Amino acid sequence: MESPAFEHKEFEHRLARAQQAMRAHGLDAIVVTSPHNFRYFTGFDSQFWESPTRPWFAIVPGEGSTCIAVVPEIGRPVLADGWVSDIRSWQAPCPADDGVSLLAGALQPLARRFKRIGMEMGREMSLRMPLVDFFALRERLAGVELADGTPCIWELRSIKSDAEVAYLRQGCQLVSDAFEALPGYAAVGRTEREICTDLTIDILRRGAHTVPFVASASGPGGYPQIISRPGARAIRDGDVLIVDVGATVHGYSTDFDRNYGFGKVPDAALRAHEVVWQATEAGIAAAVPGARACDLHAAMTRVLEAAGMLGNNVGRLGHGLGLQLTEPPSHKPGDETVLRPGMVITIEPGMEYAPGKMIVHEEDVHITDSGAVLLTRRAPREMPVIG
Amino acid sequence: MESPAFEHKEFEHRLARAQQAMRAHGLDAIVVTSPHNFRYFTGFDSQFWESPTRPWFAIVPGEGSTCIAVVPEIGRPVLADGWVSDIRSWQAPCPADDGVSLLAGALQPLARRFKRIGMEMGREMSLRMPLVDFFALRERLAGVELADGTPCIWELRSIKSDAEVAYLRQGCQLVSDAFEALPGYAAVGRTEREICTDLTIDILRRGAHTVPFVASASGPGGYPQIISRPGARAIRDGDVLIVDVGATVHGYSTDFDRNYGFGKVPDAALRAHEVVWQATEAGIAAAVPGARACDLHAAMTRVLEAAGMLGNNVGRLGHGLGLQLTEPPSHKPGDETVLRPGMVITIEPGMEYAPGKMIVHEEDVHITDSGAVLLTRRAPREMPVIG
Repeated sequence: MESPAFEHKEFEHRLARAQQAMRAHGLDAIVVTSPHNFRYFTGFDSQFWESPTRPWFAIVPGEGSTCIAVVPEIGRPVLADGWVSDIRSWQAPCPADDGVSLLAGALQPLARRFKRIGMEMGREMSLRMPLVDFFALRERLAGVELADGTPCIWELRSIKSDAEVAYLRQGCQLVSDAFEALPGYAAVGRTEREICTDLTIDILRRGAHTVPFVASASGPGGYPQIISRPGARAIRDGDVLIVDVGATVHGYSTDFDRNYGFGKVPDAALRAHEVVWQATEAGIAAAVPGARACDLHAAMTRVLEAAGMLGNNVGRLGHGLGLQLTEPPSHKPGDETVLRPGMVITIEPGMEYAPGKMIVHEEDVHITDSGAVLLTRRAPREMPVIG
Repeated sequence: MESPAFEHKEFEHRLARAQQAMRAHGLDAIVVTSPHNFRYFTGFDSQFWESPTRPWFAIVPGEGSTCIAVVPEIGRPVLADGWVSDIRSWQAPCPADDGVSLLAGALQPLARRFKRIGMEMGREMSLRMPLVDFFALRERLAGVELADGTPCIWELRSIKSDAEVAYLRQGCQLVSDAFEALPGYAAVGRTEREICTDLTIDILRRGAHTVPFVASASGPGGYPQIISRPGARAIRDGDVLIVDVGATVHGYSTDFDRNYGFGKVPDAALRAHEVVWQATEAGIAAAVPGARACDLHAAMTRVLEAAGMLGNNVGRLGHGLGLQLTEPPSHKPGDETVLRPGMVITIEPGMEYAPGKMIVHEEDVHITDSGAVLLTRRAPREMPVIG
């Protein structure tokens, strides 16, 4: 068994906050089906989510002192070791009725005041249950509206407790250590995959629980994209390699990258690195309570455009961070989310400085009353050059 | 960039099979949104699925020679390196219209014959897009039915090509090697997590691309469940440790476990191990073309019940395997799926032999004309005992 990540009072506090928010949103309960929301409200964690066979449900009730888990029998022993004291299970898989009637029976008595139940129907979420079962649930709950609970859930998750921030900091620090050690084994001639496998192993050795995200790309003086897996391409003289890591501690994810040059890196790439580093400074300085996500975008864009950025296919310059690699908001025009103390966000400026050649930076920060506090160890202003 | 896992002809063959199946299912096209289906039909792979922000769509058309990718701009360069020749992108994230109108515009001209488009609405699948966007798409496609494409998709994915089986075998062999090396570092006093971190690192060193699933549990003479992450519990004399691994090669996943005893293991646990080993033999022998999933369950259950099994909270005795850790069918009563050559399944008998004490085995096999061929290296009949 996993040692508990949090005291029970953490979940009691989350439930109390949720109940207050649900009243404001006019919801009698929230039902969650996806791994990160399930973990947030119940503390339950398992890699068993990798199996798509069985749906799992957690109900956050508008009143009461515990969440309700409606889960396959295979999950009961693990749930029973945790915070949730109301566990209802069925013998799954059972295609004819995979928890739907059990869930409907649990929800019906809760849906009294607003006759509205929130589910994961909106932005940056998806429902982890067969859609045909969602429709069956809706039919069974006649007179009850299944509404979009997404704004309410993100409102809760976006403000991190001190205990959550501590795990985020722990992950960011150990990945910072690992990034600083990378020049010890990265070299011209090694492939992206070899280098990133060594990095992943180093991150695990340093105490990360999982490393679900390692993206990497490389090319002469830059790279055309930042989302591919490390591949079979061998590093050459003059290349820039980017590695972007999401490693978790008790489920809380890092999301930041580092750039490395090899041999004779073109001057334009070194200059672009410094521009993007300066844009990161501008983003960190702008990340104060009261600023909006779009204001951060504007602050960074001013620096990038003054240096002649051609474009940026990422679509935003940073985002929220927590149990997931990316969470709302998005630092981009039109996102008017106001930063509040307790939020954790990434500052991620990047630019295409020449056709097909991008340089992207990223740091993770905690918004406090007195401004942004770095969780990562700041990248060097000058690109580290290996060999 | 990743080196391609397959020749283009593999995807041409998948598309041709899909087009034949779609005619039988009365579908003009299939739209997929989830990582494994997207990868199956397009070859696109990325850990970027960890970010929930942007929806991605692949259209499998009823006619034509390529799939159509409708993707965020951040994904265009990676897609452009692959098999799909029709790529349409938008500047995401764009909450006001995150690909919905682009997708609707691509689908409308395809929905002519049956006026039905298949989506991931059914068993063992979920739709990776905001449900509110699904409803918006349905409104835009007036006169077109969005139907459940799940049976058609699973029918295609359940029959593996030789190239797919080769990757599954490669993964199973390297994890078999790693399991055999585990007694070299597992010991009384070490925690589940320490042992499983060493195992994960060993599996990566042996060439697996990712290790998304490592479940582990331990206890005196057995364990009460099999889905928890390896935790802080230190192994004691008399314990049985189970480790269950899903490691991937080019996305194709292993799913099998091994049991290890430590010190003076109770005789009842050793006997239970041998019973479950014999049940595995019965399951492998029964896994011939023409047999049904429920027949495999019956063959294994006869052995387990004769030995006095108390129960089994897993809910089935094995399942399909491929790009996902678990795929249909389920070896359980009522699943009448007929085994066909090309399927890959797990044989996973387990039993609670005393209250709270389970022993579970698992092997992965390929169904061929001449019966089941092991992809894993068969577990030893007698439980390996360490120390």
